[in-house]
Amino acid sequence: MRKLLIIGAGKSTSSLVRFLSEQSEVEKLDITIADKNLKQAKKIAEISENLNAVELDIFKEDERAKAVKVADIVVSMLPARFHIEVAKDCLKFDKNMVTASYVSEDMQSLDEDVKAKGLTFMNEIGVDPGIDHMSAMQVIDRIKNRGGKMLMFESFTGGLVAPESDDNLWHYKFTWNPRNVVVAGQGGAAKFIQEGKYKYIPYQRLFRRTEFLKVPGYGKFEGIANRNSLQYRDIYGLENIPTLYRGTLRRVGYSKAWNVFVQLGMTDDTYIMENTQNMSYREFVNSFLPYSPSDSVELKLRHNLKIDQDDLIWEKLLEIDLFNPDKNIGLKQATPAQALQKILEDKWTLQPKDKDMIVMYHKFGYELNGEKHQIDSTMVSVGEDQTYTAMAKTVGLPVGMATLKILNGEITRKGVLRPIYSDVYNPILKDLETYNIKFNEQNVEYLGYNIENVK
Amino acid sequence: MRKLLIIGAGKSTSSLVRFLSEQSEVEKLDITIADKNLKQAKKIAEISENLNAVELDIFKEDERAKAVKVADIVVSMLPARFHIEVAKDCLKFDKNMVTASYVSEDMQSLDEDVKAKGLTFMNEIGVDPGIDHMSAMQVIDRIKNRGGKMLMFESFTGGLVAPESDDNLWHYKFTWNPRNVVVAGQGGAAKFIQEGKYKYIPYQRLFRRTEFLKVPGYGKFEGIANRNSLQYRDIYGLENIPTLYRGTLRRVGYSKAWNVFVQLGMTDDTYIMENTQNMSYREFVNSFLPYSPSDSVELKLRHNLKIDQDDLIWEKLLEIDLFNPDKNIGLKQATPAQALQKILEDKWTLQPKDKDMIVMYHKFGYELNGEKHQIDSTMVSVGEDQTYTAMAKTVGLPVGMATLKILNGEITRKGVLRPIYSDVYNPILKDLETYNIKFNEQNVEYLGYNIENVK
Repeated sequence: MRKLLIIGAGKSTSSLVRFLSEQSEVEKLDITIADKNLKQAKKIAEISENLNAVELDIFKEDERAKAVKVADIVVSMLPARFHIEVAKDCLKFDKNMVTASYVSEDMQSLDEDVKAKGLTFMNEIGVDPGIDHMSAMQVIDRIKNRGGKMLMFESFTGGLVAPESDDNLWHYKFTWNPRNVVVAGQGGAAKFIQEGKYKYIPYQRLFRRTEFLKVPGYGKFEGIANRNSLQYRDIYGLENIPTLYRGTLRRVGYSKAWNVFVQLGMTDDTYIMENTQNMSYREFVNSFLPYSPSDSVELKLRHNLKIDQDDLIWEKLLEIDLFNPDKNIGLKQATPAQALQKILEDKWTLQPKDKDMIVMYHKFGYELNGEKHQIDSTMVSVGEDQTYTAMAKTVGLPVGMATLKILNGEITRKGVLRPIYSDVYNPILKDLETYNIKFNEQNVEYLGYNIENVK
Repeated sequence: MRKLLIIGAGKSTSSLVRFLSEQSEVEKLDITIADKNLKQAKKIAEISENLNAVELDIFKEDERAKAVKVADIVVSMLPARFHIEVAKDCLKFDKNMVTASYVSEDMQSLDEDVKAKGLTFMNEIGVDPGIDHMSAMQVIDRIKNRGGKMLMFESFTGGLVAPESDDNLWHYKFTWNPRNVVVAGQGGAAKFIQEGKYKYIPYQRLFRRTEFLKVPGYGKFEGIANRNSLQYRDIYGLENIPTLYRGTLRRVGYSKAWNVFVQLGMTDDTYIMENTQNMSYREFVNSFLPYSPSDSVELKLRHNLKIDQDDLIWEKLLEIDLFNPDKNIGLKQATPAQALQKILEDKWTLQPKDKDMIVMYHKFGYELNGEKHQIDSTMVSVGEDQTYTAMAKTVGLPVGMATLKILNGEITRKGVLRPIYSDVYNPILKDLETYNIKFNEQNVEYLGYNIENVK
């Protein structure tokens, strides 16, 4: 039996554990799920008799070391900032390790030591980051191997509500941490490159500078620029690519309505408002509008943001009950963002039967033998229920697959890694297809951004 | 002879030194101007033979102590963050002190020791803060002393170009630190209170939520909310006032055009742009607009911000040469805000014959004997030239007057102070009138914000 230690029994662990549990007999796995909250670990473990649950506080050094020491491989599903403690123990006790999180500077700094010890620390192998890396690099490498030159890479991912559970005007529900959705895009301008020109979008314009994308079978979506597109030049080996853009997907119309919150200042998370405990939703809105002894909050908002009488944005605002004088924020010392989150959670929380959906869209523009081409590649994954969500599945399955492949010596690359190498992404993408996580590729006309293509 | 030490020979020292120099014979003053830059100190001192200039690096403890020790009173005209070093020496050697800067926490923490030694550290006695405090408190105390109850206090100050030198469409030139103008309003939402309701304006709406004010003889201005209005509740003893608002004055139309920069992201000072050294003004603008192979930068900007063909905003943008492909930013590693400042400095720098202007506007709403009243109080001061600017005059004169009055025992109050007491503001405001810095009070109908006043 090979001992597999999973640390962290959060939301995204369900699919990972089910996948590994299903393989445990064939693969001879002894799986332990460790969490500070034993109850939560037990809940995850209860799906099968071959799973063990233990209590583990990763801040207790000896507890942590003891657990790592007896494992053959360690999967850290902890919040990203806690991986480093586990990583140091894995290095100390010669254990391979897998995480779904971005490689932190601390983690990166272990690279030489990890290589020297012949270990594999695989990171960024969830969905975003993870499946995005693998599916993009597979096409990029294929184009390059055929002698093609990359002209454009655009990539979008969204965690959304599945069409069959989509019953609100925003076509959105919280399928992951709501706070991240409310503050999304803050902390600096979005920066990317188009046709060799650097472009910057400040937060106050971010939700007005979207682009539409059509996913076969799923209709139209809109992409909102991410902050950090340019770092992918190094990671993907696209140093001189003239167009590089990454974004987040929402259903068409979401961003224009969300911009109302941005413009009013409701997404600000930097200061505490007065009296939020007893503040009604209506008073919350009114805090961001000029005082008037006679005009309604509704008219002031319409006037301030120039929202026409028949604009669908208005129906979206009504739907979330934004002007309700009887519902209270009910939070002590809340920031605007926290208050807005409270309002949205009333309406955007997944109901017991709701399903989520992950959508990914890549565009690859390239030149081959003097001709320009484009491949559009899309993937949609719908959740089964609220345990085996699309999010949990697309995070957990690649993590589980990478774990097994490292354990079985199918992935042998050493160091602190991302899944950007063909010996990593090819076998995992293939396995993911058997779980219906597959990309639909289409050759489309390359329009790019060039003057000769303007019609 | 009484020894008067002025530390710091910056822009605002000219009027202070001239005022003190004029008084030096009658008042028996031996005045020393100390600066790290001896040349600058000498330049300020050259207006009269009775002025001494010395070199002083305030970070050299012994130099500083030596200079303070021999003085009878010390005026610090240093940048605000450096006062504390001087203040500690003043405390040590039992010297009174005067500054025009906001009381820092460090400065406030000396209050008990300053009182215990029977010293006066007068701060915030320039124009804003300074003349605003004094002129406001004089009216507020008068209203309260008559038994009135304050209902509203609104206060606006602007450093602008004088009407006779106003030759651009923005009706604005840099009369003080340009950087502060470019980043004005950033760092958090403006917060104030109107009719008992807390109101918040985020940066992205700040320049669209102005209010117009008419100054007799000078036409219309617009007020932009300051961030920190509410702190004046404590300072002015207005704890329960239902309406409190402070703002900055510009000429009408400035803010709506400035908002173009805000919306595009040109005022962002948090990140370095690529290639600003060789970037043209036109390319700078284009960085904040979507890529297009065919559309002009002009059309993209008009379309993005919905600027009509005949909107005066457009003429303002043309006037600053914003779309010029031949002028370069020419700054290495500049932030958007630094690049914008460069563009604006081309056009908004005061010319040798230009004069500046300080405008102040207070509104006092109050209830007396069951009736509501309002006093509007305005002050305009125009500079003489580029040395004796309105800014230098309105900062330097009250500093100089306070210095003499402390030296002469006319101001006897002890501690770390602001000029909010009648024994301070009355004599100084009276003296300022002889320099034509005087407030024009008008009793106007109190409209306030109440429903019964809606017509």
